[in-house]
Amino acid sequence: MIGFFRKGSGKAGLPPGTLVHVGEKRAEKVRIDMVGYDKDGVERKSDIPASECRALIGRFNVVWFNITGVHDVDVIGEFGKGMGFHPLLMEDIVHTGQRPKLEDFGEYLFVVLKMLRYDTEAGGLHVEQVSLIIGPGYVISFQETEGDVFDPVRERIQKGKGKLRTLGSDYLAHALMDSIIDNYFVILERFGEITEELQDAVLSEPTPETLKAIHETKRDALFLRKSVWPLREAIRSLEGSESTLMTPAVAPYLRDLYDHTIQVIDGVETIREMISGIMDVYLTNVSNRMNEVMKVLTVIATIFIPLTFIVGVYGMNFKYMPELDWPWAYPLVWLIMVGIGVVMVVLFRRKRWI
Amino acid sequence: MIGFFRKGSGKAGLPPGTLVHVGEKRAEKVRIDMVGYDKDGVERKSDIPASECRALIGRFNVVWFNITGVHDVDVIGEFGKGMGFHPLLMEDIVHTGQRPKLEDFGEYLFVVLKMLRYDTEAGGLHVEQVSLIIGPGYVISFQETEGDVFDPVRERIQKGKGKLRTLGSDYLAHALMDSIIDNYFVILERFGEITEELQDAVLSEPTPETLKAIHETKRDALFLRKSVWPLREAIRSLEGSESTLMTPAVAPYLRDLYDHTIQVIDGVETIREMISGIMDVYLTNVSNRMNEVMKVLTVIATIFIPLTFIVGVYGMNFKYMPELDWPWAYPLVWLIMVGIGVVMVVLFRRKRWI
Amino acid sequence: MIGFFRKGSGKAGLPPGTLVHVGEKRAEKVRIDMVGYDKDGVERKSDIPASECRALIGRFNVVWFNITGVHDVDVIGEFGKGMGFHPLLMEDIVHTGQRPKLEDFGEYLFVVLKMLRYDTEAGGLHVEQVSLIIGPGYVISFQETEGDVFDPVRERIQKGKGKLRTLGSDYLAHALMDSIIDNYFVILERFGEITEELQDAVLSEPTPETLKAIHETKRDALFLRKSVWPLREAIRSLEGSESTLMTPAVAPYLRDLYDHTIQVIDGVETIREMISGIMDVYLTNVSNRMNEVMKVLTVIATIFIPLTFIVGVYGMNFKYMPELDWPWAYPLVWLIMVGIGVVMVVLFRRKRWI
Amino acid sequence: MIGFFRKGSGKAGLPPGTLVHVGEKRAEKVRIDMVGYDKDGVERKSDIPASECRALIGRFNVVWFNITGVHDVDVIGEFGKGMGFHPLLMEDIVHTGQRPKLEDFGEYLFVVLKMLRYDTEAGGLHVEQVSLIIGPGYVISFQETEGDVFDPVRERIQKGKGKLRTLGSDYLAHALMDSIIDNYFVILERFGEITEELQDAVLSEPTPETLKAIHETKRDALFLRKSVWPLREAIRSLEGSESTLMTPAVAPYLRDLYDHTIQVIDGVETIREMISGIMDVYLTNVSNRMNEVMKVLTVIATIFIPLTFIVGVYGMNFKYMPELDWPWAYPLVWLIMVGIGVVMVVLFRRKRWI
Amino acid sequence: MIGFFRKGSGKAGLPPGTLVHVGEKRAEKVRIDMVGYDKDGVERKSDIPASECRALIGRFNVVWFNITGVHDVDVIGEFGKGMGFHPLLMEDIVHTGQRPKLEDFGEYLFVVLKMLRYDTEAGGLHVEQVSLIIGPGYVISFQETEGDVFDPVRERIQKGKGKLRTLGSDYLAHALMDSIIDNYFVILERFGEITEELQDAVLSEPTPETLKAIHETKRDALFLRKSVWPLREAIRSLEGSESTLMTPAVAPYLRDLYDHTIQVIDGVETIREMISGIMDVYLTNVSNRMNEVMKVLTVIATIFIPLTFIVGVYGMNFKYMPELDWPWAYPLVWLIMVGIGVVMVVLFRRKRWI
Repeated sequence: MIGFFRKGSGKAGLPPGTLVHVGEKRAEKVRIDMVGYDKDGVERKSDIPASECRALIGRFNVVWFNITGVHDVDVIGEFGKGMGFHPLLMEDIVHTGQRPKLEDFGEYLFVVLKMLRYDTEAGGLHVEQVSLIIGPGYVISFQETEGDVFDPVRERIQKGKGKLRTLGSDYLAHALMDSIIDNYFVILERFGEITEELQDAVLSEPTPETLKAIHETKRDALFLRKSVWPLREAIRSLEGSESTLMTPAVAPYLRDLYDHTIQVIDGVETIREMISGIMDVYLTNVSNRMNEVMKVLTVIATIFIPLTFIVGVYGMNFKYMPELDWPWAYPLVWLIMVGIGVVMVVLFRRKRWI
Repeated sequence: MIGFFRKGSGKAGLPPGTLVHVGEKRAEKVRIDMVGYDKDGVERKSDIPASECRALIGRFNVVWFNITGVHDVDVIGEFGKGMGFHPLLMEDIVHTGQRPKLEDFGEYLFVVLKMLRYDTEAGGLHVEQVSLIIGPGYVISFQETEGDVFDPVRERIQKGKGKLRTLGSDYLAHALMDSIIDNYFVILERFGEITEELQDAVLSEPTPETLKAIHETKRDALFLRKSVWPLREAIRSLEGSESTLMTPAVAPYLRDLYDHTIQVIDGVETIREMISGIMDVYLTNVSNRMNEVMKVLTVIATIFIPLTFIVGVYGMNFKYMPELDWPWAYPLVWLIMVGIGVVMVVLFRRKRWI
Repeated sequence: MIGFFRKGSGKAGLPPGTLVHVGEKRAEKVRIDMVGYDKDGVERKSDIPASECRALIGRFNVVWFNITGVHDVDVIGEFGKGMGFHPLLMEDIVHTGQRPKLEDFGEYLFVVLKMLRYDTEAGGLHVEQVSLIIGPGYVISFQETEGDVFDPVRERIQKGKGKLRTLGSDYLAHALMDSIIDNYFVILERFGEITEELQDAVLSEPTPETLKAIHETKRDALFLRKSVWPLREAIRSLEGSESTLMTPAVAPYLRDLYDHTIQVIDGVETIREMISGIMDVYLTNVSNRMNEVMKVLTVIATIFIPLTFIVGVYGMNFKYMPELDWPWAYPLVWLIMVGIGVVMVVLFRRKRWI
Repeated sequence: MIGFFRKGSGKAGLPPGTLVHVGEKRAEKVRIDMVGYDKDGVERKSDIPASECRALIGRFNVVWFNITGVHDVDVIGEFGKGMGFHPLLMEDIVHTGQRPKLEDFGEYLFVVLKMLRYDTEAGGLHVEQVSLIIGPGYVISFQETEGDVFDPVRERIQKGKGKLRTLGSDYLAHALMDSIIDNYFVILERFGEITEELQDAVLSEPTPETLKAIHETKRDALFLRKSVWPLREAIRSLEGSESTLMTPAVAPYLRDLYDHTIQVIDGVETIREMISGIMDVYLTNVSNRMNEVMKVLTVIATIFIPLTFIVGVYGMNFKYMPELDWPWAYPLVWLIMVGIGVVMVVLFRRKRWI
Repeated sequence: MIGFFRKGSGKAGLPPGTLVHVGEKRAEKVRIDMVGYDKDGVERKSDIPASECRALIGRFNVVWFNITGVHDVDVIGEFGKGMGFHPLLMEDIVHTGQRPKLEDFGEYLFVVLKMLRYDTEAGGLHVEQVSLIIGPGYVISFQETEGDVFDPVRERIQKGKGKLRTLGSDYLAHALMDSIIDNYFVILERFGEITEELQDAVLSEPTPETLKAIHETKRDALFLRKSVWPLREAIRSLEGSESTLMTPAVAPYLRDLYDHTIQVIDGVETIREMISGIMDVYLTNVSNRMNEVMKVLTVIATIFIPLTFIVGVYGMNFKYMPELDWPWAYPLVWLIMVGIGVVMVVLFRRKRWI
C-alpha cells in the first residue's frame, strides 16, 4: 500500500490552479520523450525541452509525448503553459492523489488512471498515477517514474504491427490505457495466488501470521478496488463520449476496454468475497482448535479429579478408619478407581467428546 | 471451481484482436459440424474444413455450425476471417475468461454464456464458455469441449418437433441458450440437495469437515452467481434489442428465457442466504457443544475441589489435631462431604447447569 | 417450507411450450367450475368439461372459471387450446415454480401469485401457485388444490354485496388477488407471534431448540420474502398497465392493492430484522450464561487450589518439620486458610466477579 | 413498541371499502371539533354531529375539522359519506396500520402520518396514526386519541400569529404536519440520550440488563425508521405535487418540511449505526472481562498445580524415601517451591498475562 | 464529537420562520465584517451595524460580509430583514443542526456547509456550521465562532493574487467553499494517522483502551461521513445549477470542487473500511491471545493432574500396600511419573499445542 494515501493538506489555502507536487519526492530530472508517426514512418526524440514541444505537433499524423516524472512543477508548468492547457488540469497531474476520471475540456480530453505494481520485496501494492491528454493529432502521457508498461506500444509503433500506425490519436490513447488495464490482470492473478495460499493455510494450520496476511490482502484488495471502480465510470464516459476526438473506428476497441474493466472489477469483487470467506474459516478453525484443546483438558481433569479425591480420602490420618485395616482394601480401591475411569471414558466416547 | 479464474496475463502487451487461447490446454482437433435445415429437410455434415463454411450459408433456411474446441487459434482464426467477423469478437471466443454478454455488431449478434457442470468426482463446479454468433440464416456455436447439452436441439431439428424447423436463426439461438439455462436448474437442484445435507449435518453433528464443505459450497455459489448475474443483463438486451435479426415471433420465447434467468438468479440468492444461515448455525452449534463440555468440567471440578481440600486437611500430620482421635470423626467427615456434594448438585440443577 | 423449491430439471431439453407438471403429484381429478354473473343474476356450474368452456364466455357480463388442480396436463392443455392461449402461458401454469409476475399478452393478462398457508402440523410455510388469466368478460383462476380462500368472493357475487356485480372482469381479478394478499396478513401475524415468542425465549432461557426455531423462522421469512417482493413489481405493472382490460374505475382499488403489498413487504422486512436481532441476543445470552458458569469455576478453583496446597504441605512426611509439633499449629493453619479465603472473596467481590 | 404491529387479519374476505376499525379498542365517544378562520376572525365549535360538517365548509376561508378517535366506524363512515370521500380513503383512516403516504384524489389530498410518543412508564415507543384530508378551503385531521400536539397550531390561529390566518388550507396542512415532525426531534433526542447512557454503560460496566436495553433500543429505532422513511417519500410527492391545492406561497415551507424529514432520517440512521457500534463494544467488553477472569484462573492454577504435586510427592508413605530423613529437606523443598513460584510469576509478567 | 447532535426540540410548536438559536451558547458579541473589492482596490470594514450592510452592496464589484457568531438572533434577524432574505433561510442559519445543502431562492443561493476541526485536547471532532448566501455582487458567510479558515482568501483578495479580484461573487463563494473542503483533507490525514496507529496497536498489543479508541474513531468517522455525503449532492446541484449567478468561467472550478468532495468521501469510506478491518483483527487477536493462555493452562494441568493422582495413591494409609515396602518403589514411581510427563510433552508438541 505504498503511495496510496497521498497527502494534500499542504495545499490548503492556495488559489486553485497552483501547481503543488503531491506524491513521493524524487531527485531525477523530469524527462520528455516523443514518438511521432504516420503510415510511412516513425521518429523518436528524447529529452526535449518543455518549450519546444508545441512546435512538434502536426509534423506527424500522431505525436506522442511521454513525460517521466511529475515532481518538478516548473517543468510541468512550463510544458502545460506552452501547450495551452487549463491550469486545473495541470494541477491534477502533479497532485498524484486523484481518482481515475475523464474530463472533457472540449479541445482535448483528460484521463487519469492508476498504474499498479505488486512490490514483491516490500510486499504490497505500489500505486502510480498516469495522466493522459488526448488532443487532435497528439497524446501526452505523464508517468511518475520510469516504467516499462508502455514498451509494447512503442514496439508496435516501431514495427508497424496492427492498426496503430494507420489510426489516429484516439487509437494510441486506447493502446496506452489498454496496456495499463492489461497490467491489472497480472495483479489480479497475483492476488488469486495469494488468496489460494491463504485458503490452504487456514484450512490446514492457521497461525497469527496468517491473520496478518489475510488482513493485509484485504486492505490491498480494498485499494485495488478503489483504483478500478472509478475507472469503469471514466471509460464508460469515454465510450459514450460525443467528443469529435473519438472516431467510430475506435468505438469497438473502447467497448472492449470497458469489458476488460468490468472483468477486473468482477475479479476484485470475487477476491474480496473469497478473502472474507477465508477470514470466517480462519476464525472458525482457530476456535475449533481451541475447543479440541479444551476438550482434552476437560477429559483429563474430569477423570482424575474424582480419583484424586478418593486417594485423598485414604490419605487421612483418622484413628478410626476401619477400611485402612482391611487386607483387600487397597486392591479394591484400585478396582473402584479403574472402574470409575472406564465408565467416564465410555460416557465421553458416547457424547463424542473423544 | 475448475476453470473459473482464467488467466489472461500472457496477453499483456499484444495488440487487440490478436488471438491467444486462454483456458485449459487440450490436444484434440478442433471440429466444425454443421446442421442445415428448412421446413422440408435436414442435412448434417461433420468435420468441415474452416475455409468451406462460408459457402454453406444460404443453402438452407438456417445453417448451424457447432465448433467443438477453441484451443486451436489457427483454425478459429481462419474460420473467423473466412466468415468476416470482427477480430475482437474472435479474440473473445478463444479467451475463455469472458463474462456472459451480448454484443451487437450490426450484421450479427455475439452472445457469450457459461455452461456449468457439477463435477461429482473432483467435487466442484466445472465452467465452460459457450459463444454464439447469430446472423441472418445462420447460428454459430463454440464449445470448449465435446458435450451433450445441444443433443436435444439436434434431435428436435431432426424430428421436426415443435416450431424449430419453421422459424429462423433467432429461434435456433433461443433453443441453444434455453438448453444451457435449463441446465442451470440441474445445478441449482444439486446445490439445493447439498444445502439440505449441510443443514441436517450442522443441526445434528457438526464436524470440521462440515465447515470445509460449507466453505466450498459458499465459494461455488459465488461462482455460480458470477455466471448468471451478467447473463440476465445480456438476455434483457437481447429481448429489448432492436436488431432486425430478432423477429417478433421469437419475442415471447426470449421473455420466457429472461424469466428463467431471473428464476435461476433467485435460486442462487436463496442458496447463498441459506448457506450463510447454515454457517451461523454451525458456529452457534459448535459453541453450544463446547459450552456443554465446559459445564461438565465446571460441575465436576466445583464439586470435587472443595472435597479434596477437606480430605487434604485430615491428611496433615500435625501432632495436635484433636479430630483425628474422635471415634466418629471419619463417618462425620464423609457425611459433611456428601452433604456438600448434594447441596452443590441441587444448586447447579436450580441454575439449570445440569 | 413445503413446496418451495420446485424442481424443473426434468424439463431440460424439451421444446418450449411443452406442458410438464412440476409440483406435488396428486391423484384428484382436475375440476373446472364456473360462476357467471351480471347485474341481474348469477349462475354457477360445476365440473364443466374443458372443451365446453369457451362457449360459456359472453353469456354473462363476467364469467369466472376456477380450475382446481394443475397436475393433469391433458385437461389443462385441452382447456388452454380451446381458449386459444399461448403455449408458454399454459406451460407456466402447470410448472408451479414460477415467480409472481404479470405478463401482458395483448388480448389477455396473465398473473402469477403465490398463496401461502401456515401449516401448523408440519410446522412451516406451505406455498401454492395461483395463476389468473384476465380477459374481456372473463377471469380464469388456477389453483393447485381445493382451497377456501376464494369463498368470500363467491359469496359476495352470490349476495350482490359491494360493487362486484356491477363492475367488469378487472374488478373480479382485483377481488381474487385481494383475497390472496389479505391472506398474507394472516401469515404475517403468525410470524409476528412466533417472533415474539422467540424473543421472550432468548431473553429468559435460550436452549439449542430455540436456535433451531430461530433458524427455521429465518428461513421461512426468507421464502415469504421471495413470494412478496416480485409480487410488488407485478401489481405495480398492473396498476400502471395501459391495457384496455383495466378500466379507470378499478384504478384506485389496484392502488389500494399495491399499498397492501408494500405493507406486507414492510412487515416481512421488519420480521427479518427482528429475527436477526433475536439471533444476536441469543448468541450473546448463551455466551453470557457460559461466562457465569466459568466465573463460578474460577472462583471455586482459585480459592481452593492454594488452600489444598497448604494442607498438602503439612501432609508431607519429613522427619524434621518443626511446625508439626507445635501445639497451636493446627488451629493456626486453619486461621491462615480462612484468612486467605476471606481475602480472595473480598477481592473477587471488588472486581465484581461474584 | 406499543401499537405498531396493527393486526388486520379480521378483514380478510370483506369487500374493499368496508370500514373495519383496526387498532386499540377504545370506549370514548368520537368527537368532531371545528376551527374556522379567515383574516378577520376565528370561530370554534365542539362536538359537531357528523352530518352537519359539510354545511360548515365555505363559511370561512379555511375550516379545520379535528376528529378525535377513529374507533367508531359508524360516525367516521357517516362523516365520510356526508363529505363525499372515497370509501377506500375512509377505510384507510379507520385501519390504523397504514404506512405514511400521500394520495391524490383530485379534489382533495389524503396524507397519512405516524405520531410518535415516548412512553416513559411502559418504556417504549407509542405510535398513533394521524390522517389528513386537504381540500379547497378545508383540512380534516383524524387522531386516534386526545392529544396536545396540535395545540400550538390552535393557539397560532387564535392569536393570528404568523401567516396562518392569511394563507389557505395548504398552509394549515403544513402547520399540522410540521407540528408532528417537530415532535420527532423530541423522540430523537430521547433516543440520543438513551444511546449515550448505553454507551457509557458498555464502556464501564456491561450487565445482561444492558444487553436487553440495547436490544430494545435497537428495535425501537427500527420502528422509528419504519415511520419516517415512507414519510420522506410522501412529503416529496407533496412538494412536487401538481395539485392546484398546493399554492406557490407554501412551496418553500414544504421544502423546509422535507428538509426536516431528511434530518430526522439522518438522525435515525445515525442512532442505528451508533447502537450497532455499542453492541459490538458490549460484546467485546464482555469477552474482555471473561478473558481477565480466565487469566486469573490460569495464573493461580499454573502456579499451584506443580507445587501441589511436589508436596504430594513427600506425602507418600514409601518406606525407603531418603529425602524424608534429611534434616534440611523441608526448608529445601520450601525453597524450591518458592523458586518455582517466582520464576512463573516473572514469566507471566513477561508475557503480560498479569 | 462535540456539537454534532444539535438539539432542536425547544422549537416544537413555533411558527416556521421564527429565529431560535440552536447550538452552543456563547457570550461574545456577533460581529459583521466586510471586504469589498474590484479590480482596482480593496476596502475592509469591521464591526458594521446590521442595519448599514444593505447600503454597502454595489459600491464594489464584490462585497463579502463575514458574520462571526449566530447566537444573537436579534442581530441576525435584523441583518436578514435588512437584506430582505426569506425567514426560513434565516431560521436555518441560526439553527446549526442543518445538513449541508444548497437552496436556490432565485435572487440568491443559500449553501450550508460543515466546518470540521480536530480538537486535539478534548480529542474528537468539533463541528461548526458555515452558511453562505451568494447574491449578485455579494457573498455573505456566517460562522459560529472566530476562525482562521478564511484567512488565506482574505490574503488573496488583499494581494490580488490569482483571479479572485477579476471574477465575480460566484468565484469568491467557490474560494470560501474550497478553503473549507481543503480543510477536510487535513482531518482525513489526521484520521489516516490514527488509523495506522490503531492498526499497529492491534497487531502488536491490543488493550481495552485500544478498543475504546477504535470505537471512538469509528464514531468520529461516522460523523465525518454525515458531513460530507450531503455536501456532495449540494455541490453537484451548484455545478449543474441554472442560476444566472453562476457564470461559465467558474464552472471548471466547481467541477474541481466536486472532484475534491468525491475524494474526501472516498477517503472517509476507506477509513471506515479500514477501521472495520482493524476491529476484526482486534477481536481475533484478543481471542488468539486468550487461546494461548488457555493452552498453557491445559498443558500444565493435563501433565500434573495425573501425576498428582499417582502421588496421592502412595499417600494412602492402608495397612496392606505391598509397594510401600519395596526398596526401589520410590525411584520407580519417579521414573513412571517422568515417563508420563515426557510422553505428554511429546504428544502436545506433535499436536502443535506447545
